[in-house]
Amino acid sequence: MTDKVLVVLSGGQDSTTCLYWAINRFGIGSVSSVTFDYGQRHRIELECARQVADFANVPNAILPIDTFAALGGNALTDSGIEVASSVEDDTGLPNTFVPGRNLIFLTFAAAYAYQRDIGHIVTGVAQTDYSGYPDCREETMTALQSAIRFGMESELTIHAPLMNFSKKQTVELALDLAALPAMALTHTCYNGVRPPCGSCPACELRIKGFREAGVVDPLTL
Amino acid sequence: MTDKVLVVLSGGQDSTTCLYWAINRFGIGSVSSVTFDYGQRHRIELECARQVADFANVPNAILPIDTFAALGGNALTDSGIEVASSVEDDTGLPNTFVPGRNLIFLTFAAAYAYQRDIGHIVTGVAQTDYSGYPDCREETMTALQSAIRFGMESELTIHAPLMNFSKKQTVELALDLAALPAMALTHTCYNGVRPPCGSCPACELRIKGFREAGVVDPLTL
Repeated sequence: MTDKVLVVLSGGQDSTTCLYWAINRFGIGSVSSVTFDYGQRHRIELECARQVADFANVPNAILPIDTFAALGGNALTDSGIEVASSVEDDTGLPNTFVPGRNLIFLTFAAAYAYQRDIGHIVTGVAQTDYSGYPDCREETMTALQSAIRFGMESELTIHAPLMNFSKKQTVELALDLAALPAMALTHTCYNGVRPPCGSCPACELRIKGFREAGVVDPLTL
Repeated sequence: MTDKVLVVLSGGQDSTTCLYWAINRFGIGSVSSVTFDYGQRHRIELECARQVADFANVPNAILPIDTFAALGGNALTDSGIEVASSVEDDTGLPNTFVPGRNLIFLTFAAAYAYQRDIGHIVTGVAQTDYSGYPDCREETMTALQSAIRFGMESELTIHAPLMNFSKKQTVELALDLAALPAMALTHTCYNGVRPPCGSCPACELRIKGFREAGVVDPLTL
């Protein structure tokens, strides 16, 4: 395995910090990124990921996944009926929450990495502040790395540098890595608006992290 | 977790045998099936899966996965370029081989099962006769089950009843389970033709298994 590294880049604060972590650790020439177009509510995330990668001078590939939208739909058990590729729920928005979504992201990232002789993957998952998402836990990452190593006969390493960081610590890491300017290009708001709404749970978490770190969020400038 | 069971049904000989294994073990009312539309070379597989499920009186859902075609394509590293959803290789056929494909199939199946309170998944993977496919090995299945259990906080069990069976033993199991009539509806041939070509590696393996078991393949009648 080489020292090449692939960052799973969502266009958010955490994965952007991880991108700079990877650049710092492996060197800019070794880093590439992948972003999943999985039917997320806000297409702006894909654009943010591209802008962040461009800004950091790192290649970015977008991979489609149409399965989440189909899974997020309804209990389709009628024989032979094809699941719709996009399903709306009561809110009129596509319902794309799927349990274990990070398992899928990382396995596809591993397949992409395997084909390019990339030995390391970096993900922004964190078990702090994220109760209720069991696919972000350290045990999950360890078991998944085993499954990928067996299943692909590879020596792939999954890095989750933010695993035990609070949002405050993530902001401090971004500061250390000179990643703050890129934060102006990231997207966090659940309502998909720019400037961010400032009141959704995702915005609140981000605001709290920057405040506790004593750093001004460049997104709000 | 309930005693409901989901069979990953490809429309081939092995997964069809597993469907009958599941019916025999869990009871017909507990069994459903899922088939992945992942850009396989031969669409006939999807039709065969549907026919097998209908014949066995088991519900069948088809889930799309457009990522393999994108991954199977080429080394797309240009920033911001979207990977095409279907790529042709030198043979003029979509190149959809992806390392660790069964990891993806089973993780999506697990998500589908989770949403429906299904506690068991059955897959037709076998480590016998299948050298070169590390995602079919027992160690891979064990590690993947761990990753899914951690990642989804579930008690899901992955069953691979054919894991250590030769093709001969698989035919004998099908005979025991009264699954032979359904074999007439399955698809094996790499060339995608019916009647099967009889000379591709997949046909040769199937023919050998039936011959060694001393059973006439209903597909050839």
